[in-house]
Parts: sequence; structure tokens; C-alpha cells
Amino acid sequence: MTSTPPAPLGVGMIGYAFMGAAHSQAWRTAPRFFDLPVDPRMRVLVGRDRSAVTAAATQLGWDGVETDWRALLSRDDVDLVDICSPGDTHAEIAIAALEAGKHVLCEKPLANTVEEAERMTAAAAAAAARFGTVAMVGFTYRRVPAIQLARTLVEQGRLGTIRHIRAQYLQDWLSDPESPFTWRLDKSRAGSGALGDIGAHIVDLTQFITGQRITSVTGRLTTFVDERPVPGTTTRGQVTVDDAAAFLATFDGGPLGVFEASRFALGRKNAIRLEINGSLGSLAFDFEDMNVLHFHDGADDPATAGFRRIVVTEPVHAYVGHWWPPGHGLGYEHPFTHQVVDLLTGIADGVPPAPGFADGLQVQRVLDAVERSSAGDSWVTV
Amino acid sequence: MTSTPPAPLGVGMIGYAFMGAAHSQAWRTAPRFFDLPVDPRMRVLVGRDRSAVTAAATQLGWDGVETDWRALLSRDDVDLVDICSPGDTHAEIAIAALEAGKHVLCEKPLANTVEEAERMTAAAAAAAARFGTVAMVGFTYRRVPAIQLARTLVEQGRLGTIRHIRAQYLQDWLSDPESPFTWRLDKSRAGSGALGDIGAHIVDLTQFITGQRITSVTGRLTTFVDERPVPGTTTRGQVTVDDAAAFLATFDGGPLGVFEASRFALGRKNAIRLEINGSLGSLAFDFEDMNVLHFHDGADDPATAGFRRIVVTEPVHAYVGHWWPPGHGLGYEHPFTHQVVDLLTGIADGVPPAPGFADGLQVQRVLDAVERSSAGDSWVTV
Amino acid sequence: MTSTPPAPLGVGMIGYAFMGAAHSQAWRTAPRFFDLPVDPRMRVLVGRDRSAVTAAATQLGWDGVETDWRALLSRDDVDLVDICSPGDTHAEIAIAALEAGKHVLCEKPLANTVEEAERMTAAAAAAAARFGTVAMVGFTYRRVPAIQLARTLVEQGRLGTIRHIRAQYLQDWLSDPESPFTWRLDKSRAGSGALGDIGAHIVDLTQFITGQRITSVTGRLTTFVDERPVPGTTTRGQVTVDDAAAFLATFDGGPLGVFEASRFALGRKNAIRLEINGSLGSLAFDFEDMNVLHFHDGADDPATAGFRRIVVTEPVHAYVGHWWPPGHGLGYEHPFTHQVVDLLTGIADGVPPAPGFADGLQVQRVLDAVERSSAGDSWVTV
Amino acid sequence: MTSTPPAPLGVGMIGYAFMGAAHSQAWRTAPRFFDLPVDPRMRVLVGRDRSAVTAAATQLGWDGVETDWRALLSRDDVDLVDICSPGDTHAEIAIAALEAGKHVLCEKPLANTVEEAERMTAAAAAAAARFGTVAMVGFTYRRVPAIQLARTLVEQGRLGTIRHIRAQYLQDWLSDPESPFTWRLDKSRAGSGALGDIGAHIVDLTQFITGQRITSVTGRLTTFVDERPVPGTTTRGQVTVDDAAAFLATFDGGPLGVFEASRFALGRKNAIRLEINGSLGSLAFDFEDMNVLHFHDGADDPATAGFRRIVVTEPVHAYVGHWWPPGHGLGYEHPFTHQVVDLLTGIADGVPPAPGFADGLQVQRVLDAVERSSAGDSWVTV
Repeated sequence: MTSTPPAPLGVGMIGYAFMGAAHSQAWRTAPRFFDLPVDPRMRVLVGRDRSAVTAAATQLGWDGVETDWRALLSRDDVDLVDICSPGDTHAEIAIAALEAGKHVLCEKPLANTVEEAERMTAAAAAAAARFGTVAMVGFTYRRVPAIQLARTLVEQGRLGTIRHIRAQYLQDWLSDPESPFTWRLDKSRAGSGALGDIGAHIVDLTQFITGQRITSVTGRLTTFVDERPVPGTTTRGQVTVDDAAAFLATFDGGPLGVFEASRFALGRKNAIRLEINGSLGSLAFDFEDMNVLHFHDGADDPATAGFRRIVVTEPVHAYVGHWWPPGHGLGYEHPFTHQVVDLLTGIADGVPPAPGFADGLQVQRVLDAVERSSAGDSWVTV
Repeated sequence: MTSTPPAPLGVGMIGYAFMGAAHSQAWRTAPRFFDLPVDPRMRVLVGRDRSAVTAAATQLGWDGVETDWRALLSRDDVDLVDICSPGDTHAEIAIAALEAGKHVLCEKPLANTVEEAERMTAAAAAAAARFGTVAMVGFTYRRVPAIQLARTLVEQGRLGTIRHIRAQYLQDWLSDPESPFTWRLDKSRAGSGALGDIGAHIVDLTQFITGQRITSVTGRLTTFVDERPVPGTTTRGQVTVDDAAAFLATFDGGPLGVFEASRFALGRKNAIRLEINGSLGSLAFDFEDMNVLHFHDGADDPATAGFRRIVVTEPVHAYVGHWWPPGHGLGYEHPFTHQVVDLLTGIADGVPPAPGFADGLQVQRVLDAVERSSAGDSWVTV
Repeated sequence: MTSTPPAPLGVGMIGYAFMGAAHSQAWRTAPRFFDLPVDPRMRVLVGRDRSAVTAAATQLGWDGVETDWRALLSRDDVDLVDICSPGDTHAEIAIAALEAGKHVLCEKPLANTVEEAERMTAAAAAAAARFGTVAMVGFTYRRVPAIQLARTLVEQGRLGTIRHIRAQYLQDWLSDPESPFTWRLDKSRAGSGALGDIGAHIVDLTQFITGQRITSVTGRLTTFVDERPVPGTTTRGQVTVDDAAAFLATFDGGPLGVFEASRFALGRKNAIRLEINGSLGSLAFDFEDMNVLHFHDGADDPATAGFRRIVVTEPVHAYVGHWWPPGHGLGYEHPFTHQVVDLLTGIADGVPPAPGFADGLQVQRVLDAVERSSAGDSWVTV
Repeated sequence: MTSTPPAPLGVGMIGYAFMGAAHSQAWRTAPRFFDLPVDPRMRVLVGRDRSAVTAAATQLGWDGVETDWRALLSRDDVDLVDICSPGDTHAEIAIAALEAGKHVLCEKPLANTVEEAERMTAAAAAAAARFGTVAMVGFTYRRVPAIQLARTLVEQGRLGTIRHIRAQYLQDWLSDPESPFTWRLDKSRAGSGALGDIGAHIVDLTQFITGQRITSVTGRLTTFVDERPVPGTTTRGQVTVDDAAAFLATFDGGPLGVFEASRFALGRKNAIRLEINGSLGSLAFDFEDMNVLHFHDGADDPATAGFRRIVVTEPVHAYVGHWWPPGHGLGYEHPFTHQVVDLLTGIADGVPPAPGFADGLQVQRVLDAVERSSAGDSWVTV
């Protein structure tokens, strides 16, 4: 078969910490396991410290470096800007990149404020109209095969009318009061604490799986430890974000939602736990066992009905056929590769891949409503 | 050893449905496995239909019957009144029994309203002062050995400062919209729906285990199915209680609580799920696996730390040594026997066994606050 | 309804240790939850020490006592002899009781040797022909509802052709080398160690569930700790039984069996673990979670196939409707009650209830074959 | 830090099916997450069909291709030969590569016969002495972090004296009798069926974790389906290998081992299940939940003892600190990367990394003993 090789697509990425490493692995790996319609080239890694970014580029597999992200805007060999820097930088970079005609992949949360997210969404719409570019936000967990199966089951009507949605995102890395202060605990940088960092994921996931939107919330944000030691100093930094958040939510289709996000759930490491009860079926998921979806089919004979532990590694499951045989599970990083695949497919097909910036904005509005409800002790409409 | 045989204590019980069967098994079984300080005699079973109550007494092992509970008040051979009738009868019976100098064991919820519960609590206090009688409310799940272990671990400080309490009581027997109407769905009889019937248990359990009190709540009550077929008729009965309830709660010791009670959680049969995260340790429990407590000890070496699946059937565990060898689990009904044991021990020792009516009242106040918060869309102080 | 009350049936029981307590609870409880065709009367408890057996009779609810089991043979008020004494006494008692025209319930193992078991089986057959009496052996675990469901699924063909049977019975009470010497470690009393005590159960269970017989075995018996302290002395007793046993087995229907029984599996308390793989379905069970059966239906759509966690507490499940609502699990002792129910039903109907002595004999032959294979390092035909 | 860049090390790989894809991902990924002492260069991919191997090389990231593996022997730019072709080719290629002074990584099983494995081991020893080259066999599962932790716990004495080893490797891809014939079912190509393909892994894993060797075995090999449709034809191929294998084993340190390998365990996809019971602790593992190790510490207080569910994703765990934060699990392929890291480290340090060819030979001897014991119905010394 003498197919034309896919056209190259130059990528420039900003940031090379945790998310930068995950995105790099995805850019490197996607072409190895999937037939891509375009050929991603890892052209530029951007960081402010030239020495550090140069070392990172070598380690992570990028062709070159820049120390100012604005340099990407005028580079003809960069078609897509991948934003992995902290949340307070997202709006400026994304809007500039979109206005320069670049595709954009932006890590979540889309922005630190609703106002920023609105401007970004408007910029994405304008760029789509003007250049045909796409803008995607990195709610990567959507692309866990078990989550895809959950979405499919809802779409197929296997759950019937949804009545309950309970979602928890539990970590424990701040449980020790002496664990150090970081920028993630500074509201001016991070925008939010557990709510925005991890609560955002379960807002997105429950809306994605159910195809419904959160319409109102009442919540409570809590900070258990007010100050923490600043590494390398004898001072303590003020924690200005929430350590944990909990909220009730109504959805436009009727179910009652219960959400909780915490970095103080001792013993839970990255427990994204979802449970959805419908009139015909129920689902349960825990990211600590990410290759498994539990599904209760109400149509089963009562004598043999029960939650099925589905090992989501069969060829019929989303993405899985490109990887390993049944039972050979995927890890945390694989959904990042799936994200790249779907992003590039969307670009090639001219179909903006979900979640777009409008989805990110909607999540931001939910988070904002939770914050306001916590401040005002009442329900807030999203 | 020529010990004096324990003195007899006459019991009269009102009601012989689900709870009556469970209590009868407890009264019959307690003397067989435990050395009791008094000897319970199953003297009278009370029901309004003489024929039916007579058959029930034979089946359940009661010596005789009455058709009016008031008859118990004047019977000298009845020392203790065990109330297993619906919630709207509790106040009248309990207060009369207490005023007649009888000990009282009253099924939960203590009453259908806070006002009733307050009068009952006052009557219990008065009777204690006047007669030395005890009054206990049947939050039986406290006496599951795994729950006792949870309480012990908190008391020992193994959890440190508690930060999170999440509790769910999930059933699914109303999930089918065509399942029949019953008195439990009529607010005038049942007082409350999922909130009072099963939500009450997780309010009591979390307060018991943590030794803390809920101080404020915000919640949402929902009715998914408004009317249901009345058995034996062609009419449909109006559902006037909640099908599900969810609420956030603050506790006097600082933790953030998240509660949910539902009869619509398809696939969950009697899932009482508790999880408590503290600064030093965490606990998790699910009644669907009732002989197990999961405990994460933050003091464990990080290399080998993890939730321990404790099979709570060792002789060191509460009550267990009286039953079977390790690994030979108990069932739903055993905590009712433990309740009888502790009740009789309390009577013999003159130490009122917990939970007393004041505990039941406090739970009632929490439930009432949840209802009011749901009606008013705001936080309510308990 | 004015039905005739069921006819009384007098029971005499020998032994009042662990099994005696469990049987007593069953005799007391069966009439309370089930409509029995005959009315069991707990007439006589037998033990050699009059003072001790008298106290036990009071505690356990027996009307009177005897100090010699032979007294039961001539008592007209005893219709059934329930044998809960050690294995080396079974043959003599059971045969005498059968010859005296009594029904017999005999704890497992049926006997300590094949020769004894053969004589017992012959006596049971003779008594059945002569008196119409029944003889049952106490493989109680068959009457766990989850095990009944497993059997039903095989009978319905839901597993197809069975290919694999793996069964483990794991305890750990001898894991500590200093745990004391008991008669169970003396071959002359106990007949066998882990193999006969607990291995017998998994031999019976797998044969019961599959409806197949073990035809040949090769095994290995091991004793990890050769001598143990004799309580109250400074001497050490010789352990003359196996601490653990493992064997491979062929079944007459073709599957390959793998068995293991141990009292040295540290951390496993009473883990009866069964897994059966067929061409159409698979089953898994663990007694440490006794109210659950896991079933994989090969007919399920591959996208949603998975082991179903069936909470075996629905009214459609065997025995369960007589107890509590769904999700309110049973405990270790309930199958003893089911055993009494089925025994009495069999007596009333004149249909010998399984497992009969012939079943017990067949298990004994398997155990004997395992012992011989271990001694001879080769496969032995049962 | 101005460190010298690591020296390049040229790699040539033979085969590009399942194992070739996994190895390629490892060669590509290792330098991205680990600081390697040498710099692997993916120089040559070898396959007999030039067109196919060229496409594969592009897909998998190899610089060039050869169609005859012998070409690698004389290429100066190839320092290491990675053998991913079927088992019947291993001996010839590995020996030739070793004699040519190349390092060798050979997929398991090391060979199809003991005789071949012996010659390979001798060749490895000779090459080590002559060239200082290393030879490693790909028992990759050793490098799952949970398995590493298991090994560490045994080494630290946390299990005490080991008494029981039970291991199962269960798959179900042949459960359907109409699933197609492949070369893996032809003894002349594959050498063995379930025993050699997957049983080999659990032999290696149990020996690795315990540090003990299997000394004797008795086993049974079974073929459930004798012939299968040959794809693209109307003929059926004869299955000449085992579909399943079970065996008992003695180890040189005393424990009793029970092993089972099957491709007919319906519903089990890649269930490598290990359980080890010692006098002081126990371990359990299931590859279907590969980021978790269960550990029971006998030293824990009996009140709170239980199997700990250790999420093996902490920085203290082997390899994990190079990947993602706690709770962000790894997948099937990551141990291949760890294998590359340890192989290259061994080459750089001049310390042959385990498992070497002698380890592979020992596994081969165990498999051979199992086959002979099955044929002869008796125990066979390894």
C-alpha cells in the first residue's frame, strides 16, 4: 500500500514539569501505536531558563528551545501550541496563539477565572471562524478507556434516567501539616486549591459521562492547614486556597449530585471515584484501578444480577486495540496519547475535538459557583 | 462455681414485622452466647389483631399476647417494653411505659418529630431519676464489631484530627417506579423517607465513631417517583416522603461531612458506606461486607502503608469471642443480640447504655435541620 | 388457617463444643424462621461430665442430659441423634443409632477411615430399608446461599463444559509454632489434619457444585511444625497429622482440579475459595465474603462482560427469603439452620436429604487417596 | 553540572510482533524518564520481509532494517542484539550473537528445550569471560514495582520462613473452541503451550521473590481442544501443545508450591496471581491490578492486622519515582522500560543483570520436569 505520508504538524510546548513530561510522552508515543492523519513534530520546548529548558528538551525529545513563548507566534514551523504552564498564564498565551492562527491544546483548568475563560472561549471561536484552528482543553481523564465505556453505556440508554451522581477526587499529599508550601497553595498563582485542581476533573467527567450540565450548586470550601514551611527558608507561607471542597449539585436532567475533592484524604493517592445510578443501570469507577469499570445492568435476572467488574482491555473498547492484548492494562499516561490522537484527528478532519474551550469555560463556571456558594452559604445557579 | 442464677426480667414487645423478628431473635439468642446479668423472659407480644399476634408469638417464641400495648403498663411481669411499631406510635408508648416505671428499648427513628423526641427524652430523664430505669434507642449498627473497632481506633487517637467524614446509605428497593406504595412512603405515618429511615443510621454512626456532633447542615431532599400503585387496588398512592437525601455537614471537631441516603441506588442493596480521614489514619467500611473494616495507619512505613482489610472476627474484637472462631463471620442480626446484651448489662449495672434517648433526639434534630435546609436552600444550624 | 401442628421429633445431641453450639443454634432457630413439617424438640444433650453437660444444656437450651450416648438408643422420646463428637467416635455411635431406628445427623468428616465410613454407609442403607430413617453428614457449607446459587448455575448449564476447578481452604491458627498442642493434631483422635478437617469441605463443595466426582489424585501432605507445647505442662506433644495438604485431581467430567488446605496461611482466617471455569461461564467464591458469588457469563457482550458481584440476599436465592431483606447478609451459623430445615423436610417427606453417608464415604475415599498418593509420590485412583 | 554525555550503544532487534512493539517502546522511552549510563540507539530492526520490516521500523522508530539477522553479527554499530522472534530461533541467534561479542537480551522462554538452554547458558558464560558481554532473559514481570516490593519484603525477612507459594497465570483467549489455530499451538514452533508461555513466568516470579529454587514437581498437562480452524482455509490444525498445566512443587527452602497456568480460565484476561504465606507475613498479587501489592504483617496488633492494599506508586518504590506522582499507576509496558534501564546499567557497570541465561535455564528445567512428570504420573526432580 503506497499511501501518502501524513503531512507534518509542528508543535511548540510551554512548560516541562509534570504536565510537560506527560504531554511529551504522548507526542512521542502517539505515532508509534496509532495511524495518525498528520505527523506531529516536536519542534520547540519553551521555558524561561535557557539552560534548564535545553536540558529538558534533550531529555524529553524536543528539537529546539525558546525562552519566550511569544517566539512561537511567528514561527512558521509551529502549527500547534501546547500550554502546560501554570493556570495564571493560560489566557494570555492561548489568546495570542489563537490570534496567530495556531491550534491550541491547553491544560486544565482552562483559566483561573471565569472572565479569562470567557475571553479564551471567544478567542477560540474567532480563530475557528478565521483560521479553521481548533482549541482543546486537557481534561485527559475523559480518554481513559473505562470512562469512554461509561459514556457509551449512558449514550446507549443502558442507565435509563439518571438519578444519582456521586464523585470524589481524593488525594493525600497535603495531609501532613509540615509538607512544604508550593505555588499551588497560592491563590494568585493557582487560582484555586483542591476545587480547581482536582475538583475540576470530576465536574468535567460527570458532565461528560452523563451528557448533562450542572445547573446549581451549594458547597463548602475548607482550609485545614493555614500556613506551611517554605522550603529553603525559615518562614511559613500562607495557604490561600482550599484544601478540600464538597458540594451538592443539580443537573439539567434531574439527578442529584454529590461532589468532594480533597488533598487530605489520608491513604487515597489518586482516587477518582465515580458512581452513577440510573433507572436501568449503574456505574462505578475508581482511578486507583483505572482499567476496570463496574456496571450493574438492571435488566439482568435478579438471581444473577450484580456489578460486573469489566476489565476494559478488550479490542472492542476505545483505544485499547492499538495497545496490548486483553488484560494487559494501561497506565496513567496513556490517555494523554489518546488526547493527542483525537486532537490530530480533529485537526485533520476539521472537526473540533471535545472538550473545547466552551467545555472548559462551563467547568470554570461551576467551580466559580461553588466558591460563591461557599462564601454565601446558599445555593448558586451556574 | 455455684453462682446465683441471674434474676428474671420480663419483656413485652410491640410489633412483629421486620424489626419484631430481629428483636425476637436477639432476645432468644443473647442468653445462649453471653453470660447475662439478668435473665430476659419473653413474656408478651403485642399486636392489634389477636389471631395474627398469637400466631406470631408462637413463631417468634413469646409466652403470651396482648392486643393493646397499654396492658403492658400494669403488668408486673413486664419490666421492659421493646417498641418495634411504626415511628408515629413511639412517643405515646415510650412515654407511658417510662412513666409506668418500665425500661424502654425503642426502635429508631426515636420519633417522627423533634418535638416528640424532646418529650420522650424528658420522660426518659424523669424516669431515670424516679425509677432508675433506662431508655435506649435502637441504632443497632453501632454494635457491628467492625463499627466498634472504628470507634475504638478513634478513641485511641489512631486517626488524629479528623478532617473528612463521608457516609452513604444506599438501597435500591424503590428504583422501579412500579414497585408498590407502602406506609413508609406516607409522611404522616413514616415521618420521613430515605432521610429518616436510613439517613438516620449514618448520622448516628458517624457521630458515634467520631465522638463529635453535627453542628450545621445544608441539604437537598428529592422525590423521583411521585406516585405508586397501591397493592390490591387500581389507584395510585401519593409519595409524600423523600426518595433520596444528600447533605453537607459541619462537625464540632472541624471535619467536613458529606452524607447521602437513597432507596434508588440501583444495584446497592444495603450499602452503609463510611469513610473517615484523619491526620494520622483513615477508616472505610461497607455493610455489604460487614465483617471487614479497612484501616489505613499513617504511621506505617510509606513502602508498606495501605488500607488494611481487617477481618473483624478475632477474639480481641468486641462481642466476637462469644460467637465463632476467626473468619467465621456474623450476619445482619447479630448486632441486635449485642444490643440486648448491652441493654441488660446497663440495667443490671445501673449505667444507662448508649445510645440513649438524648442521642436519638440529637439525630432527630440533625434530620430536621436537613429538611429545613432543603426547604430553604441554605445552611441550618442544628 | 387452622392447620394441624407439626408432629414433634425428639433430638438428642452428643458433644457441645464448637459444633455443638452451632447445631444447638440451628435447632433453636429453624422453627422461628421456617415452616417446618415436624417440630424438633431439643430433648437431650450428651456429655461425659455430668456437671459440665448440665451447664451446657442450660446454656444451649436442651431439656435434659445424659452422660452415656448409649442412653439415647433406648429413649423413645429421641427420634434423631445428632453427632458432634470427635471423628473417632462417629462410626460406633452412628451405627448403633441407626440400628436402634434413629435418624442420624453426623458431623464431618464422616469417619476417620474409609473402612469406618463404609460400615456407616452400609448401616445407613440397612436402616433406611428397615426403618425408613435418614442419615445425613454435616457438610454444612453446601447450604450457604451463594453455594446453592453456584450449584444452580451449573445445573442450568450456565457454565457449559467445566475445565478448571481450583479450591483452597486457608486458615492460619497454627501459623505460630508456639500455639498449643490439641487433640486435633493427634492422628489417633483426629484421623487427619488440615486435609480431613478442612480439605474435606472443599472436596465436598466442588463435587456438589459440579455434580462430578474426583476420580484420581496426586498430592503432598506436609507438617511444618513437628511438636508443640502441651498446655499446662512443660512437655511438647508430637504433631502426627498434616499441617497442610495440596493435590491435583481429575474429575469424571474432564476438568482439572487443584486443591489446597492449610492452617498455616497467615492472614487468611477461614478462606474457602472456589473458582470454576467452564466453556460458557465461570464462578468464584470466598467464604470470607460469604454472601457474595462472582459469576462471569460468557454470553455477555464482550464490551460489558465481567465477573458479576452477586450479593446473594435476594428473595429468589435459596433460603434467603426466610430471613432478612436484600443486602442484610447472613453469617457463619445460618447454613446450620438450613441443614436442619432440609433434614427435617427430608424426614417428613421420606426423601433422604443430601449429603448422605454415601457422599461422606466418597469424600473419605478421596482423602484416603490423597494420603496414599502423598506417601507413594504418585497418582492414585479414587 | 557538565557531565560527559553517555556513550552510544547500538541496538539491533529481531522480530516486531507483540514483543517487538513492547521492546521498541522501552528502548524509546527509557532515556526519557531515566538517567542512563549509556545511550541506546535503535539502529536496526530485523525481519524476513523487507517491505513489512521497513514499515515496522518506521512505525516503531528504528533507523534501518536488515532481512537476515546474521547481518547484525558483523555490524560494528550494533552492540546489543534483542531477540523477540519465536522460541525455536532463540538458541541459534543468541549463541551466534554472543560469539560475535554482542550483548544479548532474549525474550522468554529462553529456549524450547533444556538442551538448547544449556548451550545458550554456556555461550553466555564464555562470552562474559571473553568479551565482558552480558546476556539477559526477558522475564519482564520481575520489574513490576509491586513484584520488586514483594522481593524486598522477603529479603528483609518480613515474611519469615515461607510455607506456601501459590501461583496462577490465567488467561481465556483459547476458551472458545472455534478460536483460530496459530503457531503458538504447534509444539514444533512454540515448544510448549500454556506451560512454557505463561507458566514460565510464574515459575520465574516465585523463585525470584522467594530467592528459592524449585527442586521437584508433579504435574498434569491437559489439552481441552484438539484441533482448531486454520484461518483462511477450511482445514483444522492439530493442537500439539498443552492448553493448561497444573503442578505441585517443592522448593529448596521448604515451602509447598501449587502452580496453574491456563488459557481456558474464562473471564480471566491476564491474571498473574501470586500468594505467599510465611511465618511472619504474607503477600498477594494479581496482575489485573498490577499497581497494588497486598501484604499481611504478622507483627501487627491482632486487633488491626489485615492484608494491606499497598498502592505501589510511592517514590520509595522501585522505579516509580521516575514516572508520575503517587496514585498515578503504571501499565503493562512500563516493566519493559525498567528492563532496558537495568540492562544498560548492568552493561555500564560490568555487572550482569538478573535474570541471566542461567536463570532462564533453570526455569526451562522446571518446565521440562513438569512435562516429564505429567507423562510419567510421578514426581520428578528438577
